[in-house]
Amino acid sequence: MRDLASDQPNQANLSMGSPSTSTSGWIDEHHLGVRYGLEGRILVDEHSPFQRITVIESSRYGKGLLLDGCWMTAEHQERHYHESLVHPALCSAAQLERVLVIGGGDGGTARECLRHQEVKQLEMVEIDRRVVELSQEHLPSLGGSAWSDPRLQLEIGDGIAWVANAADSSYDVILVDGSDPAGPAEGLFNKAFFEHCRRILKPGGIFATQSESPEAFQQVHIDMVRLIRKVFGYADPLYGWVPMYPSGWWSWTFAATDSNRFRNPKPERVKAIAPSCEIWSPRWQQGAFEAMPAFIERELIS
Amino acid sequence: MRDLASDQPNQANLSMGSPSTSTSGWIDEHHLGVRYGLEGRILVDEHSPFQRITVIESSRYGKGLLLDGCWMTAEHQERHYHESLVHPALCSAAQLERVLVIGGGDGGTARECLRHQEVKQLEMVEIDRRVVELSQEHLPSLGGSAWSDPRLQLEIGDGIAWVANAADSSYDVILVDGSDPAGPAEGLFNKAFFEHCRRILKPGGIFATQSESPEAFQQVHIDMVRLIRKVFGYADPLYGWVPMYPSGWWSWTFAATDSNRFRNPKPERVKAIAPSCEIWSPRWQQGAFEAMPAFIERELIS
Repeated sequence: MRDLASDQPNQANLSMGSPSTSTSGWIDEHHLGVRYGLEGRILVDEHSPFQRITVIESSRYGKGLLLDGCWMTAEHQERHYHESLVHPALCSAAQLERVLVIGGGDGGTARECLRHQEVKQLEMVEIDRRVVELSQEHLPSLGGSAWSDPRLQLEIGDGIAWVANAADSSYDVILVDGSDPAGPAEGLFNKAFFEHCRRILKPGGIFATQSESPEAFQQVHIDMVRLIRKVFGYADPLYGWVPMYPSGWWSWTFAATDSNRFRNPKPERVKAIAPSCEIWSPRWQQGAFEAMPAFIERELIS
Repeated sequence: MRDLASDQPNQANLSMGSPSTSTSGWIDEHHLGVRYGLEGRILVDEHSPFQRITVIESSRYGKGLLLDGCWMTAEHQERHYHESLVHPALCSAAQLERVLVIGGGDGGTARECLRHQEVKQLEMVEIDRRVVELSQEHLPSLGGSAWSDPRLQLEIGDGIAWVANAADSSYDVILVDGSDPAGPAEGLFNKAFFEHCRRILKPGGIFATQSESPEAFQQVHIDMVRLIRKVFGYADPLYGWVPMYPSGWWSWTFAATDSNRFRNPKPERVKAIAPSCEIWSPRWQQGAFEAMPAFIERELIS
């Protein structure tokens, strides 16, 4: 099976007015003849060594972050993404002692992980220090108490090299919270990366990654699910919503080597986590795994 | 319980350039500080006695329709909406002889209904003749063979008066395919309307309506589900996607008076319909009914 990185979606473009910090206007992501925009103003617009980073303040969703012109997150819309990625994995892994997050520089994934008291150590490997710094400065509610939690070990570095160098059977859970397969996240979508993730996962562990939109990135999504299923043995996509992402319809794919254990959240963890979730619940999760549209189901069984 | 029409969302605005038929640009719907736009050109932009009607040609989704500046449908995105509204109802009603569609002037709902061979008579009551005429002219694939099907009885008139005047126990299925609760569709969201729909439904019948976005029209959605549940006895929302609608996350609510029979599609109907669906399948439907986000579940049990 070919690497997914060769199947790049069109790079989205940021069409903003002048990056003035004083004028209000529309900040849009463009993707394949569609644009999604928030009304607001630009607070920061800079180039790191890896990408363009833009922080905005919007009227609808509070402060928001774009990387290379693509919406990443916003204060009042981020729980769709973070709860969907984290809790199906962390509620079902055999153990939770050691968790690895690749990317996730805004801090939202770490925050949701650290709500699980069984987590003893969370290593977060983010390639771009400026994403962390700007998120801590402008979107502090995303990381929340995670930034000062002694269980968090933040590493600024290349997640692809990190998984290649990690010892076999190191992690109980591996979460990939990266952007689209273009730019610095490109290497998070190929077979070599997934094989290392499998190798460094402990028995009973769970691997999870955002897996793009079944509508706006249809072929990338299908190829990703097929490839992850082949590498790990068991993998299913879960379908949810991130209104600010292309089409609003998004997916996360969960994998394990011994069974589809990601379908079965442990009741004691559910009891601790669910009451303070906005989106995630065992009921929602069960539905989101089943809500596979017919056109994807036909592709995945063929 | 108060009528929903008093809980109007902000009216969306159409921000287009000059309605020239020759220039290409962005056609946007604005809603609460968010805009969703398609790149394309305007083919028709006129005012009927009821509303502004705009037909566009987009690069991404083919020809599309807006009413009062709100996206209604587009050739290559319409099946999300129409399959989600029609098949959970028509696969589970006790009988299908006589079906009523309120609104639905683009023809997509009628087309999906008439794929069910058990339907003997389909009455479609659309208030705006120009929506039908412009859809037939510019978006003929929406209605497809429905427009020439002898089972279709098209009535140009007020759906609210139609249900008020209809005899008790007239219809096996009633589908409401209207726009947001502002403008001509406002009266499709209140208790008097739902009570008439219940009255004119046959035993074993199903009522279904689009029920707005749980994100972009959160309170309207919650109030609607509660009210329909109160009027009919059994009602559940189903959650899916319409990328061009505000937030991309949409709902349809299904109701019956004797049981939650809308949860149980009949196998012989599934066998006839499912193979040519893009979105709908019994699996998808089951997931879409379960995929209720935690914040809505908490509201609906309180």
